[in-house]
Amino acid sequence: MIKASVYVTIKQSVLDPQGVAVQGALHSMGFREVESLRIGKYMELQLDTNDRFEAEARVKAMCEKLLANTVVEDYRFELEG
Amino acid sequence: MIKASVYVTIKQSVLDPQGVAVQGALHSMGFREVESLRIGKYMELQLDTNDRFEAEARVKAMCEKLLANTVVEDYRFELEG
Repeated sequence: MIKASVYVTIKQSVLDPQGVAVQGALHSMGFREVESLRIGKYMELQLDTNDRFEAEARVKAMCEKLLANTVVEDYRFELEG
Repeated sequence: MIKASVYVTIKQSVLDPQGVAVQGALHSMGFREVESLRIGKYMELQLDTNDRFEAEARVKAMCEKLLANTVVEDYRFELEG
């Protein structure tokens, strides 16, 4: 069993309206030290395999095909176990 | 300038319908090794402070008050810089 942690973030050049909104909310609550805030997705997958090399290729394929929109998003992942 | 990475995940005892849907989509695409998948949020904050101790308390307060719904979500964060 391998655990994969996938991080999907909006590319730096792309506007993140959700992040801007949350930053505005934090400012109005008094957290004025927040200079920027960007929101992404974090996914934890349990994979029924023990082949780390294969798992790496498979998770990469999942990210490219479904988990991330590579036009506007970046992704990275870590494998454990 | 301190960078905070905040991870907000749905508690293990709480159903994650978005994760179930994505897992179903992966299965139907042939990624049958995915045993479970849970989706959370990942936030990157740039904080205009150099006081790590203060930053830790402030980010904790942001999570408790806005970034996480502690009834159904867990959070953790890391500070860098």
